[in-house]
Amino acid sequence: MEAAGSNLSPTTKTSSPRVTRKKQQTRNRIIREAERLMRSTPIDEVTIADITGAADVGHGTFYLHFNSKYEVLVPIIQQVAARWDTVIQKHLSHEDDPAFVMGFAIRYMGRVIIRDELWIWMLEHSGVPMQDMKDAVGRFAARDFGKGLLSGRFVVPDLSLTSTFMMGGYITALLAARQSADPDKSIDQLSELMLRSLGINATEAGVISTLPLPAPVRENYQAADWQPIAESTIR
Amino acid sequence: MEAAGSNLSPTTKTSSPRVTRKKQQTRNRIIREAERLMRSTPIDEVTIADITGAADVGHGTFYLHFNSKYEVLVPIIQQVAARWDTVIQKHLSHEDDPAFVMGFAIRYMGRVIIRDELWIWMLEHSGVPMQDMKDAVGRFAARDFGKGLLSGRFVVPDLSLTSTFMMGGYITALLAARQSADPDKSIDQLSELMLRSLGINATEAGVISTLPLPAPVRENYQAADWQPIAESTIR
Repeated sequence: MEAAGSNLSPTTKTSSPRVTRKKQQTRNRIIREAERLMRSTPIDEVTIADITGAADVGHGTFYLHFNSKYEVLVPIIQQVAARWDTVIQKHLSHEDDPAFVMGFAIRYMGRVIIRDELWIWMLEHSGVPMQDMKDAVGRFAARDFGKGLLSGRFVVPDLSLTSTFMMGGYITALLAARQSADPDKSIDQLSELMLRSLGINATEAGVISTLPLPAPVRENYQAADWQPIAESTIR
Repeated sequence: MEAAGSNLSPTTKTSSPRVTRKKQQTRNRIIREAERLMRSTPIDEVTIADITGAADVGHGTFYLHFNSKYEVLVPIIQQVAARWDTVIQKHLSHEDDPAFVMGFAIRYMGRVIIRDELWIWMLEHSGVPMQDMKDAVGRFAARDFGKGLLSGRFVVPDLSLTSTFMMGGYITALLAARQSADPDKSIDQLSELMLRSLGINATEAGVISTLPLPAPVRENYQAADWQPIAESTIR
């Protein structure tokens, strides 16, 4: 909302809460319809006219919020990441070890990402969009990372450099993992490498990265199908 | 030469050794002049006409070898990497420990890359050009990597995934290191993280990554200035 807000004229800046809420609702509708369209049609074929038509807004309204159809992908990805983070945190509510938490998040989110054509499209079409990735998963990663550093479980030479290294390696390797003979196994190996980077010894990093994951991740699923997982499926 | 070769007609495929040598010389001249121009003028301002003029070849001859001016960057980068690898190997001729060799190469090549505007341009403008990077430094990295695996000094879950992860993290973090308060120190920390990924324990990875490097790397230098370093400066 901030990006759109900065384009507003002085008068609209003082708009009433009702107007602000209306704007937010319109933006959300654009995002929702764009996601629906981009998941049912090849992304390159979706036009802005398709999106505005489905969201029932004018062309100008679209550009009040976004500069291109690809810009809509960023909040979509952010929302997808937030939904899955909720699922992940639910699984981890009784887990104290930051290394286990980090390994679980890397492995679970990796499985989500390689199965989600919108993520893959974004990763393949903009090289390593570090800022968008950071916006999308960084805040969750930073939370888990911080816990491990505070507790002394993770020991790294430099926080910022380490997260950049890990994120760059993660994205690059996920795209490769997707093409491998056993993508999920490759993701587990990736988790092992990343835990090593955090200072976890090799043996333990391997053990943590091969623990069983909850069933829903092992099945085929749509990333958009984000309803909280039933309690019964939680390990 | 292979890429250009595949565009040749059947008759030229059977060309005499003299013709082949001539073609190779022309290609080398184009590469050499393109590098000289791209190091003296902002890359975006260099035109193909500038390059063909400097290399004294026709427009058509250029396109026989390359599809764009940016395609010339790949062999330039490959040659730069090969020259520096020679320098690095000279420093390491009496060194047996694969972890030391890998750490030295990561730190030395990292210092070369962040100081070389052609490398930086390539990395920033094509996201993570994994294939080009692999072509350029991969063959040296694979050699060092292989020695460590054979000797059991490196233990990794999967060779291909590990090198992809490390290369992706390396490139991303090098671009960040360049912007940091102390780029060379950031590169040393990057080496520490990468050695950890290879299974070297955290303490040892830190020690190896902070050993003194030979003087020329600590000074300002042009990456193009690749003459072998005088024996006296070798530690």
